[in-house]
Amino acid sequence: MALAELTPVLSRYLGQAACLQLLNFENLSTLIGSAPTLENKAALVRVAALSLEKYEGLVAEIESTGGNTVDYLEPFAPHIESFQQATRGGDWYEGLVTSYVTAGILDDFFIALAEGLHEGPAARIRELLSGNEGSRIIVEQLSASTASNPRLASRLALWGRRLVGDTLLIARSALAVPENTRPDEARLEPVFTDLIAAHTRRMDDLGLTA
Amino acid sequence: MALAELTPVLSRYLGQAACLQLLNFENLSTLIGSAPTLENKAALVRVAALSLEKYEGLVAEIESTGGNTVDYLEPFAPHIESFQQATRGGDWYEGLVTSYVTAGILDDFFIALAEGLHEGPAARIRELLSGNEGSRIIVEQLSASTASNPRLASRLALWGRRLVGDTLLIARSALAVPENTRPDEARLEPVFTDLIAAHTRRMDDLGLTA
Repeated sequence: MALAELTPVLSRYLGQAACLQLLNFENLSTLIGSAPTLENKAALVRVAALSLEKYEGLVAEIESTGGNTVDYLEPFAPHIESFQQATRGGDWYEGLVTSYVTAGILDDFFIALAEGLHEGPAARIRELLSGNEGSRIIVEQLSASTASNPRLASRLALWGRRLVGDTLLIARSALAVPENTRPDEARLEPVFTDLIAAHTRRMDDLGLTA
Repeated sequence: MALAELTPVLSRYLGQAACLQLLNFENLSTLIGSAPTLENKAALVRVAALSLEKYEGLVAEIESTGGNTVDYLEPFAPHIESFQQATRGGDWYEGLVTSYVTAGILDDFFIALAEGLHEGPAARIRELLSGNEGSRIIVEQLSASTASNPRLASRLALWGRRLVGDTLLIARSALAVPENTRPDEARLEPVFTDLIAAHTRRMDDLGLTA
């Protein structure tokens, strides 16, 4: 992977990563409110808590640079809000797939992108973002439903495919591309190939075809 | 205070306290999604995280008794859902006052009610529920708006008053009253007087009349 040259400065990296993590937490919160059963609800509270830990870890990094969280997040909020609109699921199941797919790809992406940061924050951020207990719980919550309901499974597989495009676009928008230039697509390709391969494995874990 | 005789068994105590804490977390999550500014949003994420810590602390107590969280919460969910409906604010500000007022009174109440539990869990639960950093942040977020907008202040004061009745009712419903008996009102009165006095101080902190 050759992302180091396209890694934005730390403030920009942290602002975007924290803003996206906050979005994931918001999405999960909505799903807690509309969970079909109390068991689903209790499980999703745990997933939301894990997302919140990631967000708060990123905020701790912002604060340790002497930065103000709101100032760091503000520039990315409108773009990320459009992303939220575009990836909003039509029901609880689609919403859960949205969190699973987008957070899965974006955590992987920001882990790869950390390559170009100083080793101190890079190591802490990689450690922070690589926790995947939340994904494991979502698989547990969804796979019984997809296994017993083939129509639901095919609808969610379709939804998962739709999410990939928007998620990769928001990932690309986080790259630091000098003005009036374009990133070298050939060098980016392996990165995106890896992201999609990991996404495909995650869809497999759900029993869905990517 | 003479609540010890009316303290329910530990499983019932924990089920109700956790279910109410989960409701507060859900309410806060909704407010994060509809926060007027990113600064409000970032502040409320912190409040939600603190509520989540209380919920997870109660869940840890449930698990340490060998209990299943969903089984403990289930009996109280319908009643607490009605409470949620009855206390849902008409806008973001009222919603925030709902969280502030109801969580304030109920945390105080469950701290008092812990009197009748074994000293081990009682001490841990008192410590857990007495954190009031969340209230402090809400005051910070609301008091500028109430100070500069007298109409908003009087509307929120009115809303705060409306919440007290429903909140005290849900508190009363948590008491273990033997069937075909009624609690001794004269002995309960000091408890409810204390709860209301603390509520009045909290409304003062917001610059609102209780």
